[in-house]
Amino acid sequence: MKRRDFLTGAAVTGAAAATLAVAGCDNASTTTASTETTPASPAILTGKRKLKMVTTWQKNFPGLGTSAERVAKRIEDATDGQVSIKVYAAGELVPAFECFDAVSTGTADCYNGAEYYWQGKSVGFSFFTAVPFGMTANELTAWIYHGGGQELWDELSAQFNLKGFLSANTGVQMGGWFNKRIESLEDLKGLKIRMPGLGGEVLRQLGAAAVSLPGPDIYQALQTGAIDATEWVGPWNDLAQGFYKVTKYYYWPGFHEPGAALATVFNKDVFESLTKSQQGIIQNVCHTEHDYTLAEFNHHNSAALDTLLRDHGVILEKFSDEVFTGFRDASAKVLEEASKESEIAGRIYKSFRENLDNSIRWTRISEEAYVNMRTGSEG
Amino acid sequence: MKRRDFLTGAAVTGAAAATLAVAGCDNASTTTASTETTPASPAILTGKRKLKMVTTWQKNFPGLGTSAERVAKRIEDATDGQVSIKVYAAGELVPAFECFDAVSTGTADCYNGAEYYWQGKSVGFSFFTAVPFGMTANELTAWIYHGGGQELWDELSAQFNLKGFLSANTGVQMGGWFNKRIESLEDLKGLKIRMPGLGGEVLRQLGAAAVSLPGPDIYQALQTGAIDATEWVGPWNDLAQGFYKVTKYYYWPGFHEPGAALATVFNKDVFESLTKSQQGIIQNVCHTEHDYTLAEFNHHNSAALDTLLRDHGVILEKFSDEVFTGFRDASAKVLEEASKESEIAGRIYKSFRENLDNSIRWTRISEEAYVNMRTGSEG
Repeated sequence: MKRRDFLTGAAVTGAAAATLAVAGCDNASTTTASTETTPASPAILTGKRKLKMVTTWQKNFPGLGTSAERVAKRIEDATDGQVSIKVYAAGELVPAFECFDAVSTGTADCYNGAEYYWQGKSVGFSFFTAVPFGMTANELTAWIYHGGGQELWDELSAQFNLKGFLSANTGVQMGGWFNKRIESLEDLKGLKIRMPGLGGEVLRQLGAAAVSLPGPDIYQALQTGAIDATEWVGPWNDLAQGFYKVTKYYYWPGFHEPGAALATVFNKDVFESLTKSQQGIIQNVCHTEHDYTLAEFNHHNSAALDTLLRDHGVILEKFSDEVFTGFRDASAKVLEEASKESEIAGRIYKSFRENLDNSIRWTRISEEAYVNMRTGSEG
Repeated sequence: MKRRDFLTGAAVTGAAAATLAVAGCDNASTTTASTETTPASPAILTGKRKLKMVTTWQKNFPGLGTSAERVAKRIEDATDGQVSIKVYAAGELVPAFECFDAVSTGTADCYNGAEYYWQGKSVGFSFFTAVPFGMTANELTAWIYHGGGQELWDELSAQFNLKGFLSANTGVQMGGWFNKRIESLEDLKGLKIRMPGLGGEVLRQLGAAAVSLPGPDIYQALQTGAIDATEWVGPWNDLAQGFYKVTKYYYWPGFHEPGAALATVFNKDVFESLTKSQQGIIQNVCHTEHDYTLAEFNHHNSAALDTLLRDHGVILEKFSDEVFTGFRDASAKVLEEASKESEIAGRIYKSFRENLDNSIRWTRISEEAYVNMRTGSEG
């Protein structure tokens, strides 16, 4: 796989997970051993399995961290304790952005995070979280489950000895927090903005300096002025991060993550060493969390937005036509360019594009038409 | 519970399920016995459980029937065969509209169907499928999982010895098939239209004669002229029913089911007699199917619509402003009126309304804003 130049600005730091200490981690002998050679022999499958999950989130962070904990608990409950998973927050076992390497090499058994954090490995991963002007949560699952998306994701992941499942979605994200009004494309130039994934590429095309930072590091970067602006998730999660204490202009709607999926990803050998029913349970649990978290974000966002506006003096702004059109034009170029990174990135983009075009035709006369006519925006 | 007069037109036929023959049904002694007295004793829990699922669908009908089959298979797989479920299509064990009574009384152990079919029992059930100008699929799960909806559903269901889970959603439904153009509210008057749930009430308020028919009976009714029009689901399912052979005008968007949930509902005693991990697995499987089917409907609808338009001469029409506004005004009245049916219906409506208002505020600046700006409908 070739990493194209235009992506290096967003590449995650890939410090070798192999150097990380595993002392004090239970079960290291069982799970790491099984991943570096052949799948574990059937003999060990009769016993209880203890797995380690690393995450890119703060401990128990609302929605993201709590979902990872629930994934573990649901698996333990449904397997009657035959599979138990210990969850490590970002930094507890490995830093947030080393989760991928840790699971790929077998230091941990699975991770819970966002696939676009690994676009430095292959830009193809971004399509399994969210891309600018891409799919809503429901459009993404249509592609992943029924339009060939999972198969492409499996093919890409297998190159790194990984097997992933969608296990959460934040829904449409907010456009982000800015320390000044953004009225024209000119206003974006030179701004240091935290935005991972291909959304960050779009900002770079428009003259901003986009950086990818994990959640736990954003607040301090904003407070110290290391960044001028940030996107994170939506009102519920952004309230919890406390960004309103530093910046006041809160923009909608986000162009960059119209339905950001999060994933639970296993070391492939570890996953394949589980029994068929355990594998089925894990898949069901990931679906469950996907269904449950999207509802959770949608439920909490409205009240959290009220709190931000009423109690914290946040100023809610809609991106202007000029800015949104600029985002749209740049996004089209960035996606086209990304598709040239590698042969598999090209196939992922092609499949994604076809499915998205298909979805847009249906969304227009169904959900889009309904919500507009319900509120009288049209018709 | 009082059944209000205005609902009697849509009431489902409630022929006593007790008279149905159960001869030839395996496991009748175990599962029916356990439901009419106290929960089964722990002693029987160690053995394999064989349950009977009745459905309101044709055998293997795309999306609806196939989902019921998958629910059964996923449960069997995840429990390693400890719980197996035999699925009966509509009419195989009981007629479609007798599923509720059959499971309530213990003739069957669970059903897969749409809760609004039981609005003759209590109008409260309609809110757990879809109501006119109500919630989209994502708004509904926000209410059910996080806004108190499940608790109210459980309370209502417990009155009938039932316990239900969301296990599918069709997404926004189409407005339906008509044998002529509907350009004004006047055009609706006197039409015999198949539309279950409170959508049917809205049509009655507007002078149409709405009837509730189960899926398997619609095509013939349309063909013989017993009805002039019908809604069913969306392009994928409507293509499978073959309505295009009889009618040509296909309207969008549906006002009546903006995200119709389907449910898997257990006899409460049977459910409680399962082990905790089996209960957890069932809940996960229902979430899984909910997540999977919504994606399935969305994926297939676009291509199916193309087929209807290209190969079958179907004429796609958008409801006019006058007609949609008429639907909206009548819907508000019907929901208000429905809330007066019983004390619990009032509480369900109040909770639904508050959660919907909450959702609409968030939807407007997130999904609605995004899809509009993506396609340039606004901004």
